[in-house]
Amino acid sequence: MGKVIVVGLGPGSVGQMTGDAVAALKSADLICGYTVYIELAKPVAPDTPVLSTPMTKEIDRCRAALAEAAAGKTVAMVCSGDAGVYGMSGLVYELSGEFPGVEVEVVCGVTAALSGGAVLGAPLVHDFCAISLSDRLTPWEKIERRLACAAEADFCIAIYNPSSKLRPGYLAKACDILLASGKQPQTVCGVVRNIGREGEECWTGTLAELCEHEVDMFSTVFIGNEDTRMLGDKMVTPRGYQGKPEWEK
Amino acid sequence: MGKVIVVGLGPGSVGQMTGDAVAALKSADLICGYTVYIELAKPVAPDTPVLSTPMTKEIDRCRAALAEAAAGKTVAMVCSGDAGVYGMSGLVYELSGEFPGVEVEVVCGVTAALSGGAVLGAPLVHDFCAISLSDRLTPWEKIERRLACAAEADFCIAIYNPSSKLRPGYLAKACDILLASGKQPQTVCGVVRNIGREGEECWTGTLAELCEHEVDMFSTVFIGNEDTRMLGDKMVTPRGYQGKPEWEK
Repeated sequence: MGKVIVVGLGPGSVGQMTGDAVAALKSADLICGYTVYIELAKPVAPDTPVLSTPMTKEIDRCRAALAEAAAGKTVAMVCSGDAGVYGMSGLVYELSGEFPGVEVEVVCGVTAALSGGAVLGAPLVHDFCAISLSDRLTPWEKIERRLACAAEADFCIAIYNPSSKLRPGYLAKACDILLASGKQPQTVCGVVRNIGREGEECWTGTLAELCEHEVDMFSTVFIGNEDTRMLGDKMVTPRGYQGKPEWEK
Repeated sequence: MGKVIVVGLGPGSVGQMTGDAVAALKSADLICGYTVYIELAKPVAPDTPVLSTPMTKEIDRCRAALAEAAAGKTVAMVCSGDAGVYGMSGLVYELSGEFPGVEVEVVCGVTAALSGGAVLGAPLVHDFCAISLSDRLTPWEKIERRLACAAEADFCIAIYNPSSKLRPGYLAKACDILLASGKQPQTVCGVVRNIGREGEECWTGTLAELCEHEVDMFSTVFIGNEDTRMLGDKMVTPRGYQGKPEWEK
């Protein structure tokens, strides 16, 4: 009986993978995942057989990986970012009941909130939340409520899946909700595109400007809290909230 | 003129560091940080000189690192977890204005929400927030408001700094706020202690049980959303909210 190792690859470059992720890829008999993520794993294990399924066929993909493990293989199921943040580890655990005896292991990785944050500066140094704007599996009303509560609580926010071809205008809708729920128009915001990959680029501006900003599905969006500011070209959230910067006390 | 590389080491083991973090440690002339974190870096760069300051002296520590960089050194400022999540990257950027010409670079790492999540199963697969219970730099009222909003929005929650010698009983207070703001007593919860280090251990139970559970400063606490459940001994949050498990549709 084999096992499925759900591997978070980080944002894209091999240098941003953990040592355990690299070791898991090298140990695998089969690498399973969405085509784009399999490409990220290629430089580490170029000769390992692969099994890919299209973007929205996650259930088929997980069942296929578990079936190969049931047949004795060590299967690396690859995800970008972390295996557990909008990743496949939950679904593999959920479906593993259909394949008794198959072992499941999770190797964590750097999710886009962290890797994109490092590109922008230090936007998530204090309390933050991660919210996906994809309503494929979550009712939009629930997403709206999360956005409103995040604004009321003055969280820093990392927005995943801010847009797609089927969902143009979702980020603008989200910005409107944040503004209506207490975030100020001058709140410092940032966008990072193609984190850790060719064509990495970032943008910073205010929340009012973000409402008009075009983003695509390869972008992660960052909304500051009321103390977040630009220091030179970096977006930085202080650790504390005691009024004056802590080093001036 | 040298530079400061703020390095997120991940939870503890070398295997959970990224390749870029390992490379940064090896390239450094000096490793700077809190004593406990310097120990985590030792296996990678055993012969590199170190400069450590006590736990709460972060400003002194960052200034010392920047001063050494201004004198020409490549300084690795090490943090556990990610450099940008309750880490030192923000403070280094904030203080770097006092040391013109010193370059600052951030190498991200796996924060405890992700590494602890992988130990428990897949607790943060859907929208989540990270909240620190430390009121050393944040007014308790602000922490209370964040907890209440996180419960109202049905976020999964990762709680950092749930307790310390000076703050016994903070986790119980936080649990009371969550219960008063919409989280149900049977919400699935977990605690991971010494993630990725010797003595790693975890606990799972309900939110009602968590209220009575003792935790220390080496623990990270996880609160599920309304759909989080135990699958065998794993804490798993489904990706979607459409009622039935998605693979039964």
